[in-house]
Amino acid sequence: MQYYVDGFRPGDPDLKPAADNAATPDSGRVIPDEVDVLIAGCGPAGLCLAAQLAQFPDITTMIVEPKPGPIEKGQADGVNVRSMEMFQAFGFGETVKREAYWVNQTNFWMPDPDNPANIRRVGRQQDVADDQSEMPHTLVNQARIHQLFLDVMRKSPTRLEPDYDLSVQTLHIDADAGAGSTDHPVTVTLARGDGTTMTVRAGYVVGADGARSNVRKAIGGHLHGDAAHQAWGVMDILANSDFPDIRMKNLITSASEGNLLILPREGGYLFRMYVELDKLNPDERVANRNLDVSDMIAAANRIMAPYSIDVKEVVWWSVYEIGHRLTDRFDDVPEGETATRNPRVFTAGDACHTHSPKAGQGMNVSMGDTFNLGWKLIQVLKGRSDPALLHSYTAERRTEAKRLVETDHKWARIMSAPLDDDELDGREMPRFQKHFIENLEFTGGLAVRYDPSTLTSVDAQQALATGQPVGKRFHSAPVVRVADAMALQLGHVAQADARWRIYAFGGKADGTKGGRIHALADWLATDPASPVRRYTRSDEDIDAVIDLRAVFQQSFDQIAMPDMPPLLRPEKGALGLRDHEKVFCVDHKTGQDIYKMRGIDRHQGCMIVVRPDQYVAHILPLDAHGALADFFAGFLLPQDHAVKPDRGRAVPA
Amino acid sequence: MQYYVDGFRPGDPDLKPAADNAATPDSGRVIPDEVDVLIAGCGPAGLCLAAQLAQFPDITTMIVEPKPGPIEKGQADGVNVRSMEMFQAFGFGETVKREAYWVNQTNFWMPDPDNPANIRRVGRQQDVADDQSEMPHTLVNQARIHQLFLDVMRKSPTRLEPDYDLSVQTLHIDADAGAGSTDHPVTVTLARGDGTTMTVRAGYVVGADGARSNVRKAIGGHLHGDAAHQAWGVMDILANSDFPDIRMKNLITSASEGNLLILPREGGYLFRMYVELDKLNPDERVANRNLDVSDMIAAANRIMAPYSIDVKEVVWWSVYEIGHRLTDRFDDVPEGETATRNPRVFTAGDACHTHSPKAGQGMNVSMGDTFNLGWKLIQVLKGRSDPALLHSYTAERRTEAKRLVETDHKWARIMSAPLDDDELDGREMPRFQKHFIENLEFTGGLAVRYDPSTLTSVDAQQALATGQPVGKRFHSAPVVRVADAMALQLGHVAQADARWRIYAFGGKADGTKGGRIHALADWLATDPASPVRRYTRSDEDIDAVIDLRAVFQQSFDQIAMPDMPPLLRPEKGALGLRDHEKVFCVDHKTGQDIYKMRGIDRHQGCMIVVRPDQYVAHILPLDAHGALADFFAGFLLPQDHAVKPDRGRAVPA
Repeated sequence: MQYYVDGFRPGDPDLKPAADNAATPDSGRVIPDEVDVLIAGCGPAGLCLAAQLAQFPDITTMIVEPKPGPIEKGQADGVNVRSMEMFQAFGFGETVKREAYWVNQTNFWMPDPDNPANIRRVGRQQDVADDQSEMPHTLVNQARIHQLFLDVMRKSPTRLEPDYDLSVQTLHIDADAGAGSTDHPVTVTLARGDGTTMTVRAGYVVGADGARSNVRKAIGGHLHGDAAHQAWGVMDILANSDFPDIRMKNLITSASEGNLLILPREGGYLFRMYVELDKLNPDERVANRNLDVSDMIAAANRIMAPYSIDVKEVVWWSVYEIGHRLTDRFDDVPEGETATRNPRVFTAGDACHTHSPKAGQGMNVSMGDTFNLGWKLIQVLKGRSDPALLHSYTAERRTEAKRLVETDHKWARIMSAPLDDDELDGREMPRFQKHFIENLEFTGGLAVRYDPSTLTSVDAQQALATGQPVGKRFHSAPVVRVADAMALQLGHVAQADARWRIYAFGGKADGTKGGRIHALADWLATDPASPVRRYTRSDEDIDAVIDLRAVFQQSFDQIAMPDMPPLLRPEKGALGLRDHEKVFCVDHKTGQDIYKMRGIDRHQGCMIVVRPDQYVAHILPLDAHGALADFFAGFLLPQDHAVKPDRGRAVPA
Repeated sequence: MQYYVDGFRPGDPDLKPAADNAATPDSGRVIPDEVDVLIAGCGPAGLCLAAQLAQFPDITTMIVEPKPGPIEKGQADGVNVRSMEMFQAFGFGETVKREAYWVNQTNFWMPDPDNPANIRRVGRQQDVADDQSEMPHTLVNQARIHQLFLDVMRKSPTRLEPDYDLSVQTLHIDADAGAGSTDHPVTVTLARGDGTTMTVRAGYVVGADGARSNVRKAIGGHLHGDAAHQAWGVMDILANSDFPDIRMKNLITSASEGNLLILPREGGYLFRMYVELDKLNPDERVANRNLDVSDMIAAANRIMAPYSIDVKEVVWWSVYEIGHRLTDRFDDVPEGETATRNPRVFTAGDACHTHSPKAGQGMNVSMGDTFNLGWKLIQVLKGRSDPALLHSYTAERRTEAKRLVETDHKWARIMSAPLDDDELDGREMPRFQKHFIENLEFTGGLAVRYDPSTLTSVDAQQALATGQPVGKRFHSAPVVRVADAMALQLGHVAQADARWRIYAFGGKADGTKGGRIHALADWLATDPASPVRRYTRSDEDIDAVIDLRAVFQQSFDQIAMPDMPPLLRPEKGALGLRDHEKVFCVDHKTGQDIYKMRGIDRHQGCMIVVRPDQYVAHILPLDAHGALADFFAGFLLPQDHAVKPDRGRAVPA
């Protein structure tokens, strides 16, 4: 963790210096006339976006929520490994690791063939495969995740706080907006719970306002798909049970009483149950049935016989029916107009895709949406990219949402299909277990792979890093930081700061005295064609847009920091202090060799270009300087000032 | 991390429910007439004690500090592995791990024989030996440690806050106090900075008020020892340097310019330097010399030639002379009166021992003092032990302080001794490196070994657990928690909660269906002679005084939780919820076998009794029920009520 670069400050290092225009706590908040980004909804999607934007005082952000304050319980609880990796970038991965329940094993229970009224365990499965991620799969209540994002916002330079009791009613986009002639072309009508309304002009609007999204409606979006006619109940309970695996995740199929999911939760005592509550008639809605928590408890006890639960406290419960729906577009630009118009309004999370909660994907995919959108908005609003970049949000995330809805649909069908004899008597692995195992990469959030585009190069040389598939998330591995011999995860250098990263892996010829990493770093620092020189402003640190990191095959004591090129130890911040944390090497002590683990070519080395949202964008030989320049030229705009090569800070050209 | 045992509560799990008598923030604080414990001084010793006492609403605690508020910079920065283990028990070990600098390697620099005006690196040493501790050696500013303790106090049930601008002037102990006839026999005079005074009657007073301690003076204590006539300067700086190892710990001996220590610090840019500033004449005091930070910077540049530092910001600096001093006693009872009088007043930290800061021990030993005293005071104030227990504080901690002062003295002499030719030309490892290596266990805080007493059994069967020396701290190792297949450190189940722990390690015959662990647990839960039954009150959880944990040699899926005896899955808290986190097994997946790592007898198993401050008190065979009862009878008092065996909560006998 790096801090003090602008001088010493006492106290919590996560609490950043307040910007001049930072929000003042406890003062009467006046709703502004104009904001750069207006976010509707304080769910995971909205807060994940707000936490990114809040870091930039030159971007004004407002986030509104109809509820009177933060939620306290209920809703989602599954945090897959990909989201945990993202939390690490926001700085609260360790907090969630400490507080949350870790899903280490999942158990499968089925009717006992000798006595079908009783269930028995038929399988047990490690939930996160070895080296699938350095982070665990966790379960923790959504309200706590909200709080951690709110803490990030509160400690950011802008001290951003949500405006509660305020919802987007409707919005109107200025007809000239497509040409980008107006900075704040979206006029948004906001309403309080008491009916009073006001208008705000926004540059961009992001509707993270749930399945009944007014933002989606305002841009003419509709959720399409089927609503499966099955009722499920969910309850968070404090209870005792004689069920042997009560502190593990369980998928239970009973002979005639339906299905049950058990998900232990944070704190060691709480757990969640999803209970199948009878088939619905096609014209019957859950809302029309009088199901309550006692029905759920009774059903759970029937399904898990001969075991039972003794409920001490019901913390939260809900009944819902499964629906799998998707909108045609995630922004306001109709398909035929993408060449002539850039998006101004987006939807994210449940506002554009709904699905059952059982695969534990909802919160994760919602945050994934806005982790994708956040850096793009920042890049555009800071003048680093043309607004046309924003089309990539729908392109990338709708594909992912479609896959989610399809997988979820399939999963729901498998869970409710009757068991056959081969499954029941143990001759075959039950389909639900088989399907669960096949889907572990997907449920871990690791199957996301963005298609080739300006952001994901089609020319990438995958053979140079076979374990880092282009378009998928950069897969972390252990390394040792040379300057202080610190063993850490290379992926943890990435923060949620909208910066691009180039990980340069040294080949055989790279070492302390020179080689292709030196040549790359020198070219990046000094050549007029270098993307670092072209796209970094004079008032920014030299790594503000593109952050170069190097990894060597040697051990830490074979690399001398003073021999490293200046770009790998740049002087930064208000005081011009040298950054010592950009050079790494293989962890020879533990034998966890990142080259071997991630299929990096030992002879040639390579560079891996990684997007701000941690997805692999390009893989190139270390000397492919021109190709690297071409890649960044596809979406970054040249800045007014060139970078001063000898000092790390930029000067006027 | 366990929470919600008394029902669900939203928000930060570290924020505990407020007690009825909790302090109210921001209200006008009225100084009470009477407190159970008055702590003088908000340094590491005082805060470490306050953070323990704050957890108990039935103990009233007050902590006073002459300064107007918390310190912001400077002073100590070394946190050894033992203190990190203790921080883990307070719940902020992970926070310090994330924020602090980790001392991974220490380098040794000496004059280059070819050019003695220049230094060269002669050695490099891994700073924490493999498996010495699961925690790192870290460096972070003392003010941040204070803040983390203050957070623990603030989030405790009593919401304890320090009373600033208030110092202990003097105190008087009621003559009858020795017999324990008065609950609050110490009358303390407190003064504000403006000279106004007030009195408070205290049950116990702990002087953690520094080297000039008024509490020590009030009980007639004197610091004895020598003040070495050597001046050292210390500075925390933000600086650039061409010194190759600037982000590692360095001990530098120059040919003629003296010595220098470099200690990198939190945040990646800050570092501390200790600079030898000339010899002093015997009658010359540092205070009488006009040394300032520019002298220090100049000296550092001379010592580290051919390298230099370019200072951008001086965060804090100080000049001091080395002194090694110790008081005769750490409490108010003269040596001859220990049989007839119990202590009421204690000193801790610099108030009773001073030494040079260079071994990085000061803050650590000070916190070690009050981590030793805290649980003893709690045990006495809660009526669990006779006040005679408190004599053990001086007995145990003075021995430790004496060793520290002696080691520090020796270290200072070695650092300032001239180098001989064999060292200079590399034929011999330099003495300072040799001494450093020999002292790694000591500087890690792991050499502390309490002598046999009622608290540290002389009859312990060391052969049953050769890697857990009796009297030393319980050495953690990896295990897997059976209920949720969670891999974790066994030692991390211990919190700073004044509870005793029994770690029962299963032998060959122990397993899911029975064996000596089952017999032990059943005896502890049901036998009238059991220490759990004798010493636990009816209104307490069954593990409130003695917490049994079991470790089995099997893998987690060979142990069935429902087969475990009730004491290993007791029902607790307001709701009677079952605790699932007391049964562990060997981590077969990683192959880190706690039996092998800690020399546990595989055939017989054993039980290891561990004090609330994590020191090994006793090692016994699993069936030594009588010996276990005898051990606890040595210092615990029978309570009014027996424990109800079938439910985990106690009922009137």
